[in-house]
Amino acid sequence: MKIRIERTAQPKPHADESQLGFGRYFTDHMFWMDYTPEKGWHDARIVPYGPIALSPAATVLHYGMEVFEGLKAYRRADGRVQLFRPWDNFSRMNDSAERLCLPQLDTEFAQEALETLIRLDEAWVPSLPGTSLYIRPFEFGADPFLGLHTVHHTQFGIILSPSGSYYAEGINPVKIMIETRDVRAVRGGTGYAKCGGNYAASSRAGMYAEKKGYTQVLWLDGVERKYVEEVGAMNVMFMIDHKVVTPALLGSVLPGVTRRSCIQLLKDWGYEVEERQLAAEEIFTALAEGRLQEAWGCGTAAVVSPIGELSFHDKAYTINDFQIGPVTRRLYDELTGIQYGRLPDTHGWTKVL
Amino acid sequence: MKIRIERTAQPKPHADESQLGFGRYFTDHMFWMDYTPEKGWHDARIVPYGPIALSPAATVLHYGMEVFEGLKAYRRADGRVQLFRPWDNFSRMNDSAERLCLPQLDTEFAQEALETLIRLDEAWVPSLPGTSLYIRPFEFGADPFLGLHTVHHTQFGIILSPSGSYYAEGINPVKIMIETRDVRAVRGGTGYAKCGGNYAASSRAGMYAEKKGYTQVLWLDGVERKYVEEVGAMNVMFMIDHKVVTPALLGSVLPGVTRRSCIQLLKDWGYEVEERQLAAEEIFTALAEGRLQEAWGCGTAAVVSPIGELSFHDKAYTINDFQIGPVTRRLYDELTGIQYGRLPDTHGWTKVL
Repeated sequence: MKIRIERTAQPKPHADESQLGFGRYFTDHMFWMDYTPEKGWHDARIVPYGPIALSPAATVLHYGMEVFEGLKAYRRADGRVQLFRPWDNFSRMNDSAERLCLPQLDTEFAQEALETLIRLDEAWVPSLPGTSLYIRPFEFGADPFLGLHTVHHTQFGIILSPSGSYYAEGINPVKIMIETRDVRAVRGGTGYAKCGGNYAASSRAGMYAEKKGYTQVLWLDGVERKYVEEVGAMNVMFMIDHKVVTPALLGSVLPGVTRRSCIQLLKDWGYEVEERQLAAEEIFTALAEGRLQEAWGCGTAAVVSPIGELSFHDKAYTINDFQIGPVTRRLYDELTGIQYGRLPDTHGWTKVL
Repeated sequence: MKIRIERTAQPKPHADESQLGFGRYFTDHMFWMDYTPEKGWHDARIVPYGPIALSPAATVLHYGMEVFEGLKAYRRADGRVQLFRPWDNFSRMNDSAERLCLPQLDTEFAQEALETLIRLDEAWVPSLPGTSLYIRPFEFGADPFLGLHTVHHTQFGIILSPSGSYYAEGINPVKIMIETRDVRAVRGGTGYAKCGGNYAASSRAGMYAEKKGYTQVLWLDGVERKYVEEVGAMNVMFMIDHKVVTPALLGSVLPGVTRRSCIQLLKDWGYEVEERQLAAEEIFTALAEGRLQEAWGCGTAAVVSPIGELSFHDKAYTINDFQIGPVTRRLYDELTGIQYGRLPDTHGWTKVL
């Protein structure tokens, strides 16, 4: 499919790279294409970034028919721009779309569209350390009807946001609260899909945690309310007895690209990695017995985020003296090293544009 | 707050009342107001029905931050228009909004806005038997940022759709399939809230059921996958041993206005109503022993919908010889009688405009 390009007549001034924040600024252009059962995906186009028009009855505004992805483009020291495992994001987007009965993407074309868009807006990829171009592909139902039927008209878009570090605090340890009231997802539901409803379900607990001084919540499973699942919008890993334990992908946990990358690196380095159910109690027992060395969250936005404090039923527990552990630090350095092209990419994870 | 009214310059032709379908046509106007923490709800306005402009980064397009309601206005035999328990819908909308951390409505003002809008578009309320004006109030997050924070800018809208019966089949018995793979909601999640994510989670099972010739699915609970919860987008009731059993509101089931109305009417008529957990197995045991008299779904869209066949693990069971049972019929007649003003409203459920 040919991509029609309509360049902006009014390029925007770039924001100060030291003040970017996350997801607040957008580049000059965006990509869109439409799907109908009759025409398939069509009208691929890059147009100036700006408001879109939707029917007030559009499916996405009522029935949460929306999936998305999050990935980044990085400015290398040589000035070139590269992507990190973009094919994994588009492949996961199709898994999410399947769960919601939204149409499947041609992942190769989606990546071509992304690369075309980034090339056009390449000057927007920031170069200050820690900054990157956050990429948001998303797909939603846009039928102008209220009936609950399979979505017909679907829109797929990509928007680009020059961003700083996800956490204002940077790679410093964060305080996490185990959530005991709200549930994010349950097996059989949409937990493994990157869809809007999971985030809506998470919002209240996140807000309460923030009010209590915590950065994110750690979710428990929806069945037994006993096993840890994800931390906020990241996967989570614990180093217990010098082995890494991370919740298995049993349907309610997002199969993170950063999670998979961490597991690969840890195995490369000779660590044992267990993907299994992990009860909150097991974590605190290990902590009490001095067998919990480190804990961290991992995800595209924050890369790796050390957990310095974990709170459970209003009692706070300090992990690793609220210091960044050596494995957490090594993962962060290695992953960001590969992502920014400072370290060799031995797994074929990056693509230089 | 004053409601600014901008009348359409191009009134649309009305659709044929015998061909309305559900949620396909909309009246000439719509209501909107905006919320920000600084200004609260503001800029209440009625404007011509048409597309709305949203930032491509708007919260609602990514994170499912959207709640809605569904209610109806009915054309009485005397030509006047009346609403059915609208205050219950706006009150539930606030409960839904609380779960998602969206701002609370002033429910009295919301109802005033609705009444003002309906009066303006009153000619659109259809009068053919079985038709009504379907009302969709909805509220969503519209911040133009991708960060996962509490929503600031929120939009509240009301759109109106002249509609026929929800099911093309009318009040005939429907075939329902018990869903054993996908889960709609779990206690602690958003099941009791009328929010987009619940419908997105339901879409795949609904589509598969439709392909197999079933109208809707009957959901099982997400914890034990054993107790029935809702049928499609309706509550469900079973008459076992001449008592009515309906799933209790334990967090994963929508507290339906029609459900509550049915329970009240049934009690008025001297029936015992049990709100409790009801295992699918109990239904089939009762059926096998001849103790299951009737089963029906109830909700605003379909009012009351008799269940003639229930399928479980690929085995189909017929209920009440695929006939409309006397209690199902009586509930339908009584409720629609009250809603259209044909029967006395002894509970103060209606409001004539």
